[in-house]
Amino acid sequence: MTDALAPSALAMVPFVSVDDMLKLVNAIGPARMMAEIADYIEADFKRWEQFDKTPRVAAHSDEGVIELMPTSDGETYGFKYVNGHPANMARGFQTVTAFGVLARVDNGYPVLLSEMTILTALRTAATSAMAAGHLAPKDAKTMAMIGNGAQCEFQALAFREVLGIETVRLFDIDGAATEKAARNLADSGLRVVSCATPEEAVTSAEIITTCTADKQYATILTDNMVGTGVHINAIGGDCPGKTELHRDILLRSDIFVEYPPQTRIEGEIQQLDADHPVTELWRVVVGQQTGRASADQITLFDSVGFATEDFSALRYVRDQLEGQGCYQLLDMLADPDDPRDLFGMVMRAAG
Amino acid sequence: MTDALAPSALAMVPFVSVDDMLKLVNAIGPARMMAEIADYIEADFKRWEQFDKTPRVAAHSDEGVIELMPTSDGETYGFKYVNGHPANMARGFQTVTAFGVLARVDNGYPVLLSEMTILTALRTAATSAMAAGHLAPKDAKTMAMIGNGAQCEFQALAFREVLGIETVRLFDIDGAATEKAARNLADSGLRVVSCATPEEAVTSAEIITTCTADKQYATILTDNMVGTGVHINAIGGDCPGKTELHRDILLRSDIFVEYPPQTRIEGEIQQLDADHPVTELWRVVVGQQTGRASADQITLFDSVGFATEDFSALRYVRDQLEGQGCYQLLDMLADPDDPRDLFGMVMRAAG
Repeated sequence: MTDALAPSALAMVPFVSVDDMLKLVNAIGPARMMAEIADYIEADFKRWEQFDKTPRVAAHSDEGVIELMPTSDGETYGFKYVNGHPANMARGFQTVTAFGVLARVDNGYPVLLSEMTILTALRTAATSAMAAGHLAPKDAKTMAMIGNGAQCEFQALAFREVLGIETVRLFDIDGAATEKAARNLADSGLRVVSCATPEEAVTSAEIITTCTADKQYATILTDNMVGTGVHINAIGGDCPGKTELHRDILLRSDIFVEYPPQTRIEGEIQQLDADHPVTELWRVVVGQQTGRASADQITLFDSVGFATEDFSALRYVRDQLEGQGCYQLLDMLADPDDPRDLFGMVMRAAG
Repeated sequence: MTDALAPSALAMVPFVSVDDMLKLVNAIGPARMMAEIADYIEADFKRWEQFDKTPRVAAHSDEGVIELMPTSDGETYGFKYVNGHPANMARGFQTVTAFGVLARVDNGYPVLLSEMTILTALRTAATSAMAAGHLAPKDAKTMAMIGNGAQCEFQALAFREVLGIETVRLFDIDGAATEKAARNLADSGLRVVSCATPEEAVTSAEIITTCTADKQYATILTDNMVGTGVHINAIGGDCPGKTELHRDILLRSDIFVEYPPQTRIEGEIQQLDADHPVTELWRVVVGQQTGRASADQITLFDSVGFATEDFSALRYVRDQLEGQGCYQLLDMLADPDDPRDLFGMVMRAAG
C-alpha cells in the first residue's frame, strides 16, 4: 500500500467478514494458520520495545466489559474492539465478540477492518502455544484442558501443531461442553480423553490449560492438583475480579506475563502483592531472561491477551488478503477530489 | 433491537458507508440534519452525568494523531476512530477521517458501524451551533469564519439554521479555500463576504469561528481583533501543541469547555494555568450555570470535540436507519448456533 495509489482507492477499506474469515481459516487450515500466527506474534514480541503499549481501555458494566485495545509499531496502528459478557452464553450470544482495524500511522487511513471473534480465538491459542514453546517441559505430550468452551479446541489444535502435544484430557463442569469438544477433536490426530473431574484431567499432564468463563474469583485449580514440573497456561483469569487459580499455586510458580501494568489488574496475579516478581514474556523470547530453567519448576503463563497479539494476527490476515482474496472493499472513507471540499462532495452527491 | 431477535440477525451489523451517509445527508438536507443532530447533542449534554467519560486515547506520531474516543450511557456504548494529519491535505488525503460504532452494553454486540468523516463534520458544526445558542449574543446576524477548509461550510450552514445567522465573512490564508467555500455557499441563503485579511473578516461579526488546521501554536486571532460582546467559537485548537488564539484573548474571555480533563490538554486553555477557571458547557445547558451574562462579555467556546458528541451523532444516524434505509448489513459477528461451539462453526464452514 503506497502513496502511488490514487486517493479514491484509499477510500476503500478491505473488510474481512465472518464468512471471509471462515473461508480463510479453512483454506489455510486452522492448525497451520495458528502456527503461522504464532510466528507473527513471536516476531512482534521480539520487537516489543518498538510498540506503543497501553493497558486496554475498558468500559465495565454489571453484565460484562467492552474494551478497546490499541497499539502501534510506529508504521502501522491497530486496535481491537472486544466484549466479554459471561452471561451471554446462557442467552445464546457469544461471550466474546470482536473486530479489529489496522491503519497507516503516516496518514491515519484504515487499511483493514476484520472480524475478530474467530481471529481472537486463533490468536489466543497461538499466543498460548508460542509461550508454551518457551516455558513448557521439553517433549510435553499431554495437556489437560479445564474448561471446554469456545476456546478449547483452538488451544488443543495449536498445542498439537506448535508443540507436538499428542493427548488432551478434557474437563468441564458442563459435560455437554466436553462432549462438544471431544466430537470436534475426534479427527484432529489428538488422543482425546474426557474426564469426570478436574483431578482426573490433570493426571499425567505436563501442561494444564485453564480456560473457564465465570466472571468471579474461582478456584479451578487447587494447590494439590499442580505437581512439580508442570506448565500452567492460564487463559480465563483475564479481568478484574476474575481468576481461576488458587493463590498458593501462584506462590509456587515462576510467573510469566505479557504486559505487567495490564496483568496486575486483570490476571491471576491480581491476587498477589503489586510488587510480586514476574517475568515479561518478551524478555524470554528475545533471550534476555530464562524461560524454563529446571525440570521441577512450575511455570505459569498468566495470559490476559494483549493488544500486540491482535496486531500480529491482523498483520497476518492483511498479508493473506492478496493471495486468498477473502475480503470485500468497504466504502468507509470519504475521499473528495479536493480534501478541503468535503461539503462540495456532499453537494455533488445530491446530483 | 431486543433479545427477541434471533441471534443470527444480531450477527449482522448495519453499516452506513460514505455513499449511504451522502444519501442520508441529502435526503434530510445538511442544514436540517445538523439542527437535528444539535438537538441530540444537547439532549445528551442534559444527561451528562449518566455518561462514562474519559479523555480520548491518542497515538501521536510526527505526522499526526490517531485517536479512539469511547463513551457509554450505561445502555449504549459508542466509540469513534479518528485521525488528524495536518500534512494529509497537501498529499491529497483528508486531514480528518473517522468511523464509529455503537454497541449494546448488556451483551457487547455492535449495533451500528458508520463512516464518520462526514458525520464528524456535521456533529462538529452542530456542537458549535448548540453551544453558541447558549453563549452568543442574542440576535447575532454575522459570523466571521477564519479558516475555510473542510469544516467551514458546515459551520456556516449550522449557524444559519440553528441561530439565524445571515452573513458569513470568510478568510483563509489560501484564497482558493475561500473561493471554494464562497462557491459552495452561494445558494445557501447566507450573504457571503470574502475578505482579504482576518481583520476585515471580524469586522462587525458578533461571532468569530476559528477553524484552521496547522499543527502548531498559531495566532489566528490577536487580542486587538476581538471586541467586547463577541462570541468566539474556537474549533481548531484541538490537540497538544495546536492553538489558534493569542493568550491575552483567553484572559479577557469567559471560557466554556466540553470536558475539562481533555480540554486542558488539547484546547486553547493549554496556554493557561491548569487551574484557570472554566465553565463546563453541560452546566450551562442544564441551567446550573450562566452562559452569556452580559452584552459586553466575551464568551469563548474552547471546543476540542468530545466522545459524547459522536455518540449523539451515531444515535441520530441509528434512529434514521429504518426510515431512510441508508445502510447495508455486514456479516461482522460470528454467531454459532451453540455459542460454545465456535470451532464447530469453523469446521462446518469447511463443508
